Amino acid sequence: MKNTVIIVAGGSGTRMGTSVPKQFLEINNKPVIIHTIEKFYFFDRNIHLILVISSGHRSIWDQISRNFSIPLRYEIAIGGQTRYHSVKNGLNLVKEESLVGIHDAVRPLIRTETIADIYREAANHGNAVPCVPVRESVREIKLSGSRIIDRKDLTLVQTPQVFLYTVLKKAYKIPYSAEFTDDASLVERSGVKIHLVQGDLYNIKITSPEDLEIAGRILG
Amino acid sequence: MKNTVIIVAGGSGTRMGTSVPKQFLEINNKPVIIHTIEKFYFFDRNIHLILVISSGHRSIWDQISRNFSIPLRYEIAIGGQTRYHSVKNGLNLVKEESLVGIHDAVRPLIRTETIADIYREAANHGNAVPCVPVRESVREIKLSGSRIIDRKDLTLVQTPQVFLYTVLKKAYKIPYSAEFTDDASLVERSGVKIHLVQGDLYNIKITSPEDLEIAGRILG
Repeated sequence: MKNTVIIVAGGSGTRMGTSVPKQFLEINNKPVIIHTIEKFYFFDRNIHLILVISSGHRSIWDQISRNFSIPLRYEIAIGGQTRYHSVKNGLNLVKEESLVGIHDAVRPLIRTETIADIYREAANHGNAVPCVPVRESVREIKLSGSRIIDRKDLTLVQTPQVFLYTVLKKAYKIPYSAEFTDDASLVERSGVKIHLVQGDLYNIKITSPEDLEIAGRILG
Repeated sequence: MKNTVIIVAGGSGTRMGTSVPKQFLEINNKPVIIHTIEKFYFFDRNIHLILVISSGHRSIWDQISRNFSIPLRYEIAIGGQTRYHSVKNGLNLVKEESLVGIHDAVRPLIRTETIADIYREAANHGNAVPCVPVRESVREIKLSGSRIIDRKDLTLVQTPQVFLYTVLKKAYKIPYSAEFTDDASLVERSGVKIHLVQGDLYNIKITSPEDLEIAGRILG
């Protein structure tokens, strides 16, 4: 089956204290989003790439695409008001049955081998969602204080989350709600059982200047 | 008030697939535990250092202490069957009222500034436990599948956890139970309210060869 990836780069990056959103900042002289695209290129040189970019950042992207080699042909969808709306816009550009991965542009550390594992599991099970174990003690914070909670039943969810196109298309008919923090939670609501697979421990989401610095050392 | 730190190096390191436990493996040509000790030395050159080491690893430690400079004078307590028992053995070597930090030997990435923050907060509140926010979606795994849970009330707990000696001594009168996954949960059981403070995002616990590799690049 054909592979598609929707790379979501809609975030405004306000937490970084920079005017350029974090997905467009450079790690080792290359924008984060280019590192991310390259990982999918190494997985499948024929993957259908859809980039979701806010209209307000289009000029930044145009500049990047002139200065750096983009290894894959791609289409651009316009970012929406929330991640839900961004992914939905990207999904409208998928025209045929395929395995559709949805990935955060700000996760450039994903390993190509892990991408391959997730797509393969999704082909077998209809969907695959990468998770990593919780390695610290977990406390629940309440108004009255905090209390320890059992971590052994908890797992942390990452991206790329991969689904059959038909599964995702059906899930995105559900209207937007703030409770859908990722695609898995939306697909789950549509009645499909989520298939968890092993993620990468260091597939971190770059949200702070410190993350950018650490990611540079890890990629280095 | 005087500062004490109990560095717990009792683990057997079986998950690493090595015979030498992870706290004794080298990062950038220096054992993990030496990196960890140095961080506390830079915080307070007069800190009372207690190392908890399993009797089975005593010869490894003796070799390390001959080959590397240990910047602090220290005492050694014998590791117990569980972390609870190890800390309790360490605590027996504390002779006077002080602020007692308990830290995992396998967390060499803790920043000196963060150590200082935690001890200062503990001086003001009687205890201080470092936490970092959960940055991923969280799923709860059940026999019937998994479901998304709200992460905004959850926080991940790290070390060093710092307590007034009297608080800790009283808590460790409670008999061992497997539910005490860290010192904060034991102290909480003794009736003391836990004071959460900001931890270091990259104060990771080294439990796999990959962690060792990543920690090397971050420290590098």
